[in-house]
Amino acid sequence: MTLQAIKWEDRKLSILDQLQLPLRTLYRAVTTVDEGWSVINKMQVRGAPAIAIVGCLSLAAEISQATFEDKTQVLDFITSKLDHLVTARPTAVNMANAAEDLKKYAKGLHNDSQISALDLVEKTIKWCEKLLADDVATNKKLSDLGATSVMDSATGVTKVRVLTHCNTGTLATAGYGTALGVIRSLHAAGNLEHVFCTETRPYNQGARLTAYELVFEGLPGTLLCDSAAAWLMQTKGIHAILVGADRVDSKGNTANKIGTFQLAVAAKHFSVPFYVCAPTTSIDISLDDGHKIPIEQRPSQEMTHVAGTQLAAPGINCWNPAFDVTPAELITGGIVTEHGVFKPQDLKSSLDAISNKSK
Amino acid sequence: MTLQAIKWEDRKLSILDQLQLPLRTLYRAVTTVDEGWSVINKMQVRGAPAIAIVGCLSLAAEISQATFEDKTQVLDFITSKLDHLVTARPTAVNMANAAEDLKKYAKGLHNDSQISALDLVEKTIKWCEKLLADDVATNKKLSDLGATSVMDSATGVTKVRVLTHCNTGTLATAGYGTALGVIRSLHAAGNLEHVFCTETRPYNQGARLTAYELVFEGLPGTLLCDSAAAWLMQTKGIHAILVGADRVDSKGNTANKIGTFQLAVAAKHFSVPFYVCAPTTSIDISLDDGHKIPIEQRPSQEMTHVAGTQLAAPGINCWNPAFDVTPAELITGGIVTEHGVFKPQDLKSSLDAISNKSK
Repeated sequence: MTLQAIKWEDRKLSILDQLQLPLRTLYRAVTTVDEGWSVINKMQVRGAPAIAIVGCLSLAAEISQATFEDKTQVLDFITSKLDHLVTARPTAVNMANAAEDLKKYAKGLHNDSQISALDLVEKTIKWCEKLLADDVATNKKLSDLGATSVMDSATGVTKVRVLTHCNTGTLATAGYGTALGVIRSLHAAGNLEHVFCTETRPYNQGARLTAYELVFEGLPGTLLCDSAAAWLMQTKGIHAILVGADRVDSKGNTANKIGTFQLAVAAKHFSVPFYVCAPTTSIDISLDDGHKIPIEQRPSQEMTHVAGTQLAAPGINCWNPAFDVTPAELITGGIVTEHGVFKPQDLKSSLDAISNKSK
Repeated sequence: MTLQAIKWEDRKLSILDQLQLPLRTLYRAVTTVDEGWSVINKMQVRGAPAIAIVGCLSLAAEISQATFEDKTQVLDFITSKLDHLVTARPTAVNMANAAEDLKKYAKGLHNDSQISALDLVEKTIKWCEKLLADDVATNKKLSDLGATSVMDSATGVTKVRVLTHCNTGTLATAGYGTALGVIRSLHAAGNLEHVFCTETRPYNQGARLTAYELVFEGLPGTLLCDSAAAWLMQTKGIHAILVGADRVDSKGNTANKIGTFQLAVAAKHFSVPFYVCAPTTSIDISLDDGHKIPIEQRPSQEMTHVAGTQLAAPGINCWNPAFDVTPAELITGGIVTEHGVFKPQDLKSSLDAISNKSK
């Protein structure tokens, strides 16, 4: 059985409510963009690729049920709904990238006299469905490339011990995953000795979700506290650290789950290769300064309470940034995309070359 | 009102049950060494200095109620009870140091023909009471020395932003605290702009206990996730990091709460002075290799469950070392003792000189 976080059947969308995991497996129907916005904002679905896919499919679900008077009404509907979806969470770029692409696509169709209002609806739905299908294929590709790169850098061993942060697996994507996808590929190739995953406070995506995926698929894995990663590197030896990305700028600076930067600093101290695994949909090639990426601040309650129980002292202030930005120079392993593994300084030129070739 | 973690009145011991904090303030009577062992082992009392004081006072409480046939029986009782207390938790050296000192003292009295069995009991009780009283005085002294050193290193500012880990305050000691004591002294001198404290997974001593002390005393403080410390240094700027110690070896290598090492690595990256605040009772001058310090492994349940609620995915393995060892070279600020602030490489010679002078 394969774990499925996003279900799209007969033009009906439902998502596995990740706030209920690991103890309850509850699917939640998403019939409108407002519901899509809400499940993203509440983090019932999370992970940069999954956010974009669920956002777009919520539009597909709503548009398939709607009626329109003309093509312009369809285009206005698509545009305003996408603009709204982008506001659900600010840091990941995938939803913004998808919204830009889909708006451009819809505008092109709108200007084509051969295309009816119904055609525009149908093609928009198909576009969103393709986003879902493409994501799995992309992840599989980048994961295999990443696994090869990890084994190339881990000279003299046939099995590696790796560390990952947050959740970047099936639950964060349409399937397979990014950083956890690379780890799946290492395992599939017989090259994984052990995967360590951090708890990932305050939302515990590692403890709840990555651990769930590891147990579910029988990968040899161990959970540790976020603060124990340096001691792990010191005492157990780690061959590579693999993380995902919410937004990578053109220079390779990477916004990802809070704690990523601290792991990268520790990785540098121990000369452990540090990899960011990001499909090109997570790369914001228009941005050349990662420090301009908006960093979402989450409510204090996420830190002070766990599963409804107050843990922290009443009255304490909290600082709860959901993400941090890891500077490119700490990404020593490389940025793993579906087109190859690039050193940060080569990212833009490599992607430009690929984009030019495909034109 | 002053927060009091250890109460010793009319030869009766009670401790503030730290597992119930911050939501309940519950004192628990400790009438025997077995009960003392249990509250230490269960972490109802924790913190290296507090462990030694509660252990010894549990002996004082039990011995004050016991009857003995002769002096040798008293000495045997003291010796065997102390040997048992040392096994409650392995990493902190304070209980072992106190046990050694008290055994030597009791043996000396035993050999003194002027001393009766009752005298031996009474003097043992007084010795334990002095341990309690001395700890507060020691903490106050080291805290003032530490505060001066922090201000000396933070050139050009009159108020500092500091970061601390775990709980090293009133709740970890007989009163005032070590690292948190330094922060109290900074505040008292008008030099504290802000104190940031980590949650300190998995036992959340920062979120539960340090945050409680900060709120209780009105210190300007903010809680952050353990993984956010590097991002804090990057974005807010920190003048010093102050931590406690469970055991410092003669070269300055320091066993302390898991996560200390990772903070020290991040501090080095940002050139932030890193201070270990340790009364000499936490220094194991006989040991010259910190990696020989026994590191306590705690149960998985501490990570997988929070306040009785399962958080992590069922079936996941956990790695839960309670401590790590920070190498001396990362302790750039110095080791703050009641005799002065020493660079790690000067620790042994400085303490030897002080010890020779007092002879």
